[in-house]
Amino acid sequence: MTNRNNILIAQGGGPTNVINQSLVGILKNEKKKKSNIIGSINGVNGIINNKFKSLNKISENDMKVLRNTPGAALGSTRDKPDQKYLTEIYKILKRKNISKFYYIGGNDSSDSLKIISNFAKEKSYKLQCIHVPKTIDNDLVLNDHTPGFGSAAKYVAQLFSGISYDVRSLPGVYIGIVMGRHAGFLTASSSLLRNNRDDGPNLIFIPENPFSMESFLMSIKKEFLKYGRCVVAVSEGIQNTKGELFAEKIKKKNEFDDHGNIQLSGSGMLGDYLANEVKKKLKISRVRADTLGYSQRCFLGAASEVDQLEAYQIGLSAVNFSINFKNSFSVGIKERKNFKKKYEIEYIINSLKGIAGKTKVMPKKFFDKKNYDVTKDFINYCKPLIGKKIIKTTSII
Amino acid sequence: MTNRNNILIAQGGGPTNVINQSLVGILKNEKKKKSNIIGSINGVNGIINNKFKSLNKISENDMKVLRNTPGAALGSTRDKPDQKYLTEIYKILKRKNISKFYYIGGNDSSDSLKIISNFAKEKSYKLQCIHVPKTIDNDLVLNDHTPGFGSAAKYVAQLFSGISYDVRSLPGVYIGIVMGRHAGFLTASSSLLRNNRDDGPNLIFIPENPFSMESFLMSIKKEFLKYGRCVVAVSEGIQNTKGELFAEKIKKKNEFDDHGNIQLSGSGMLGDYLANEVKKKLKISRVRADTLGYSQRCFLGAASEVDQLEAYQIGLSAVNFSINFKNSFSVGIKERKNFKKKYEIEYIINSLKGIAGKTKVMPKKFFDKKNYDVTKDFINYCKPLIGKKIIKTTSII
Repeated sequence: MTNRNNILIAQGGGPTNVINQSLVGILKNEKKKKSNIIGSINGVNGIINNKFKSLNKISENDMKVLRNTPGAALGSTRDKPDQKYLTEIYKILKRKNISKFYYIGGNDSSDSLKIISNFAKEKSYKLQCIHVPKTIDNDLVLNDHTPGFGSAAKYVAQLFSGISYDVRSLPGVYIGIVMGRHAGFLTASSSLLRNNRDDGPNLIFIPENPFSMESFLMSIKKEFLKYGRCVVAVSEGIQNTKGELFAEKIKKKNEFDDHGNIQLSGSGMLGDYLANEVKKKLKISRVRADTLGYSQRCFLGAASEVDQLEAYQIGLSAVNFSINFKNSFSVGIKERKNFKKKYEIEYIINSLKGIAGKTKVMPKKFFDKKNYDVTKDFINYCKPLIGKKIIKTTSII
Repeated sequence: MTNRNNILIAQGGGPTNVINQSLVGILKNEKKKKSNIIGSINGVNGIINNKFKSLNKISENDMKVLRNTPGAALGSTRDKPDQKYLTEIYKILKRKNISKFYYIGGNDSSDSLKIISNFAKEKSYKLQCIHVPKTIDNDLVLNDHTPGFGSAAKYVAQLFSGISYDVRSLPGVYIGIVMGRHAGFLTASSSLLRNNRDDGPNLIFIPENPFSMESFLMSIKKEFLKYGRCVVAVSEGIQNTKGELFAEKIKKKNEFDDHGNIQLSGSGMLGDYLANEVKKKLKISRVRADTLGYSQRCFLGAASEVDQLEAYQIGLSAVNFSINFKNSFSVGIKERKNFKKKYEIEYIINSLKGIAGKTKVMPKKFFDKKNYDVTKDFINYCKPLIGKKIIKTTSII
């Protein structure tokens, strides 16, 4: 073997506003070590299809600009590799003499890495598979939070703050559908910039709190009678006590992505349905629904400076940890215990097995089930993540 | 008459991100003149329903924070007053001994002012009706552009820039539905942050360029074959050669607002329909549509610093002009002739009659009809309006 310093980097799953920060973090530290750095184009798909790009000559300036660019600069994929696919990947990594494979991605990516890493172990091929987390849903276990979430949360918080003032001007009911299949963190973030008791969102519906149409309508009616208006944040993943998706129920024609998941985003169906119900059943004339859409994960200018820095540092840490810890791992952010203390985080090593295939949801202490709202604990937990560069606002009526 | 320095201010129509800048501009200059300043709550509706608030004691700090707050701080209205309604308003203004009535609003507001002003003239009651323009659609005649538009354009441009990188990561077809009933300015703004030939939006469909489903599909097919992806900006107001709205055709159940206009926003219908057509007819699997929604006019943090300053200055100018020019008027921004020259604007006086009831659309030189794109002229015209505080981005694949 001529070179055991061949490094492969790939990005997988839904991109975020800061996923390139992690890419640049890895690049920076691997460049210092004079590694031969290869990028796979479109995640694991690029490995199978021989789409590689040398990243050795990427300039300091390009890296600087890349850090602030949304989307996955190496391209991403929705492929969910099976055993055969992963065996093929392992073979290619071995053929290319790769010693470290950094995969920046969510749950599915860590699962793929776990399997590839096991193949290598079986064959006694020395390969470090390193998972660098990203997700806007914030649903990775063993992590306080995940890079990508803070910026998405900032976007959602800023959007609902603006909407709250808009609905204050022209009263009615507003329903905003927020991304999040299983975890309500992003929908709950709609609350982060409320100043007063009558600021929106007045109600927050998350997957963790079983959804019933009856209480949805009753609670809107109550708020509307109180304030003459009501702003509602609804997760796309709202479900009943049996875990059946509400969106699934009302969808005439289902469409599935490669992971077998129902496609919830990119359709105005859920919001339109809920708005029509409110109009019909509560006889309120001005009811509007928006489905927030893909901008939640990529809006230029909404990145949180805290999230940006952490996504970058987690990339740097992945490289640093890889030197002394010779096995495969997932880099993470240690869970905070006390959310009232000064915000400080610590990067840690998690096992791939511990992360893969598991989903974190909102802990019970973060939401007020009865009042369809978040708790102070949630605000204390989440507010630092969106950063401090937020515009101050006020109302006079 | 004890006091002929009673000033009334109201805000009407759809709020914008900077409509409070104009409010504060008026307040600042009227306060200097020691006027008795009254705000009407919810536009003309507040006058009829006796909902007033003294604005004499609003603090400097409140004004400062208010300038950056989206939405109409005095509340707005969708009321479209008829002659009887306006007669009533005139009587109330007279009873309250109002000498100047500032109405910050769009087309409809200037129309109302024109009629009220005529009543006063007929009765020889000295009343200045002053229209302070705002609109996100940029569809007011006799104005280079309108306060509110620049910030909405910045939001749309930033959104499409992010989306373009997102779709570059995970290729497919993305359709974004942008506000704009008659004028395509806002939809066209989706182009402002493109860096490269293959950056999105690849295609732009505006009301001014007659829409046909056939060329919509053909042009998407062409771009998709060329780049493997396609980002499309579509105005909610796309229409055929006869001026019939496309959204109307596909709407099962129409809903009208108080102005008799079909409600286009707050529904995902148009985007979902177009996405399904692309999927079915072009056999492309990954097709997504987002309807941009109300955040276009109120997203916290997307205000353009140029738009903010102009909205403030137009409020100041309204007061300054009102001193020497004793009649009713609409304050405006003088039309630029040469868009290549350094960006400079000038505030002017327009007649209410000249503004009221008229709609400006995109001039032909601003769009390339055949290629469904904007021209360099449009970019030169529009780019200065979104300001310079824009994040630099790049791509490596």
